[in-house]
Amino acid sequence: MKLVVDANIPAADACFGAFGEVIKRPGREISAEHLRDVDALIIRSVTPVNASLLAESSVRFVGTCTIGTDHVDSAYLAQQGIRFANAPGCNAEAVVDYVLASLLTLAERQGWRLLDRCVGIVGVGNVGSRLQARLQALGVKVLACDPPRAEREGVSEGETGFASLETLIEHCDVLCLHTPLVSAGPHATRHLLNAERINELSPGTVVVNAGRGDCIDGLALRSRLAGQNDLTAVLDVWENEPAIDTALHDLATLATPHIAGYSLDGKLRGSLMIHQALASHVGEASALTLDGICPPPALASFTLQQALPCEDALRLCARAVYDVRRDHESLTREAHALGLAQGFDTCRANYPRRREFSTLTVCLGDEAQPLAPVLSAAGFNVVLA
Amino acid sequence: MKLVVDANIPAADACFGAFGEVIKRPGREISAEHLRDVDALIIRSVTPVNASLLAESSVRFVGTCTIGTDHVDSAYLAQQGIRFANAPGCNAEAVVDYVLASLLTLAERQGWRLLDRCVGIVGVGNVGSRLQARLQALGVKVLACDPPRAEREGVSEGETGFASLETLIEHCDVLCLHTPLVSAGPHATRHLLNAERINELSPGTVVVNAGRGDCIDGLALRSRLAGQNDLTAVLDVWENEPAIDTALHDLATLATPHIAGYSLDGKLRGSLMIHQALASHVGEASALTLDGICPPPALASFTLQQALPCEDALRLCARAVYDVRRDHESLTREAHALGLAQGFDTCRANYPRRREFSTLTVCLGDEAQPLAPVLSAAGFNVVLA
Ligand SMILES: NC(=O)c1ccc[n+]([C@@H]2O[C@H](COP(=O)([O-])OP(=O)(O)OC[C@H]3O[C@@H](n4cnc5c(N)ncnc54)[C@H](O)[C@@H]3O)[C@@H](O)[C@H]2O)c1
Ligand SMILES: NC(=O)c1ccc[n+]([C@@H]2O[C@H](COP(=O)([O-])OP(=O)(O)OC[C@H]3O[C@@H](n4cnc5c(N)ncnc54)[C@H](O)[C@@H]3O)[C@@H](O)[C@H]2O)c1
Repeated sequence: MKLVVDANIPAADACFGAFGEVIKRPGREISAEHLRDVDALIIRSVTPVNASLLAESSVRFVGTCTIGTDHVDSAYLAQQGIRFANAPGCNAEAVVDYVLASLLTLAERQGWRLLDRCVGIVGVGNVGSRLQARLQALGVKVLACDPPRAEREGVSEGETGFASLETLIEHCDVLCLHTPLVSAGPHATRHLLNAERINELSPGTVVVNAGRGDCIDGLALRSRLAGQNDLTAVLDVWENEPAIDTALHDLATLATPHIAGYSLDGKLRGSLMIHQALASHVGEASALTLDGICPPPALASFTLQQALPCEDALRLCARAVYDVRRDHESLTREAHALGLAQGFDTCRANYPRRREFSTLTVCLGDEAQPLAPVLSAAGFNVVLA
Repeated sequence: MKLVVDANIPAADACFGAFGEVIKRPGREISAEHLRDVDALIIRSVTPVNASLLAESSVRFVGTCTIGTDHVDSAYLAQQGIRFANAPGCNAEAVVDYVLASLLTLAERQGWRLLDRCVGIVGVGNVGSRLQARLQALGVKVLACDPPRAEREGVSEGETGFASLETLIEHCDVLCLHTPLVSAGPHATRHLLNAERINELSPGTVVVNAGRGDCIDGLALRSRLAGQNDLTAVLDVWENEPAIDTALHDLATLATPHIAGYSLDGKLRGSLMIHQALASHVGEASALTLDGICPPPALASFTLQQALPCEDALRLCARAVYDVRRDHESLTREAHALGLAQGFDTCRANYPRRREFSTLTVCLGDEAQPLAPVLSAAGFNVVLA
């Protein structure tokens, strides 16, 4: 078997070497002539896959090691009987880390406790459901809104624990958007947070968007921030990326360049998921695990020996693994040097290696053992010393 | 022997219990009537010590567990043959931690490396000399300015490595003030950094003041920041504390309420130094050590398993022990809630427990061993795993 693999895919040899000959190419340069006698194509989101790329090829499997599929004409693949796989949820844990790191930072800065807040989650899919699970394990009150799921799962509001967006807006201190962009239909998400809803948010509400930029009406958010300055915005995604609204950027308390999901672990999980899909496509068993392809983290462990307030311990561990202020500050700095749009892309292109909370082992001495439940709820690997 | 001890002095029993009966009183309430049949008085900086406090007493030893002596009439004590001790340098390591933590934070934010900077130190006493030692061990270029020391040590500029303030202003990227307030004489420090010198600073210079507020002409610094905005100010000390200049506060990149030296270790070192002075006064040997009175730190150790850029490793360790942004943000928050002067005092009064870099043991796995010199130079306790 012959495979063409985007040269930017991490652990490509470990994940695809066993299937046959691996030819690595920069994703943007992969063209029809490279695929003539190739059996499998493994890409990221920069390679458009369609009839003109594949018509002359022998490709029977296309895998994208990313969650998105916008770059792939999956109707064409289906029609040609070409097996297609993507990696849904591969970086969902990283986004949850981002949200928790952001909220813990705001809590310290603004003088509140995350553990006392009520958090609303809009869009309870791969990311939202993991965020819900971690927050609930922490004991944080969560209200979840996902009308498509409520509908699919055949339950009416109340029964499942799903609530309406209006209920979330009324009751939550923090509102986290994890919806995809859906432009039309009963559950369209474009400007889901529109001017009217933005104006209904209570003063002090924290709005986090790590879903899609277009789910918020940026102009309306900007005028509430510029006018009353009584919301806190944490924005990782924006309308018109990378040419995002400078005024909104400047008004956001944490402003990052669509990097919430950028962990090394997430990328490797993407590679592994496509490896598994390919293994099942060729009918081979696979014993490869994430641990088998993940390098050890630089910061391997932490020993806490004394009691600490829960939330301080959480913040200490979270920040040691991922300090979101670094990403906020890089964007500010690069925007200053290069302009906002180019700075946005530069930060993404040069993103430093980031690991997930789960890579940190926290050893707890006797006095610190009461911290075990909260630290493992947050996603750290807790061991009692 | 009977001792009156300020109730706010940590480890008072461990340090003073063996000498006799310890009576604890709030420092601000200690008055002559409490001291009639007392042999030793152990205070912090809130108890004024003078003839009216001691004239009727049998006190033969006064110890202040702080570096400052402004609250003590030492001429009166000397004349009465009362032994007096203070604790010079007890919190100097904490101030050095503050400076390193601040510089590492700015470096990340502004995109430079501390290890590449040239740092000027003005005032090379207890704090300045320790800062110099740590920076030089890190391989950072340091220029030191201390005319009184140069004079006392009988050397002219150049020979000792002391330089003039003008040389520092010309050559340094970072200027750290660690001078006391000296109002008159050839080496007066009031407005040592005056308008003229402030205007000579190259654009991009970082000015750190953790010495005394009056050593900088605050109005001049404020107008350069407000006008050109081409310096970075890190200010822990201010003119007119706690009623500090709001505009200067708002223009400082890191603004903290005179807490650079506020580590638990520093306070305990103060208690220990006075314990030792009292032991020598009564002619007793003492085997008490700092380790003997220090509780273990909450964050006891860290394991680094992989190579990391030196400065990232430094920043990771420094922040896990002390994140100066917390103090900056508390002051902003309390100032917002209570006004700047009251916020300043509130932050000082409710200062959270802080430990020094030396309390963190960093275990280095094989791959991370190249980090050993730089982490121990910075003051961490490094062990090879
Ligand atoms: N910022 C980042 O780096 C980053 C990383 C990963 C994912 N994302 C984005 O986050 C979004 C969510 O990702 P995911 O993997 O969880 O997707 P998903 O498809 O697994 O989940 C999306 C959920 O949103 C729900 N939803 C759809 N319309 C809704 C509506 N009108 N109101 C409420 N809920 C609605 C869906 O029912 C679904 O449960 C996607 O847009 C994805 O592109 C961003
Ligand atoms: N911010 C804080 O929390 C904090 C903590 C500790 C100390 N301090 C302050 O920092 C200052 C230094 O403390 P220290 O313990 O190192 O004092 P120190 O007396 O040990 O050292 C001060 C040094 O400054 C030098 N000096 C005096 N005049 C000078 C001049 N004109 N130019 C250059 N150098 C001059 C002296 O020769 C001496 O070497 C003091 O004012 C102290 O109150 C602040």
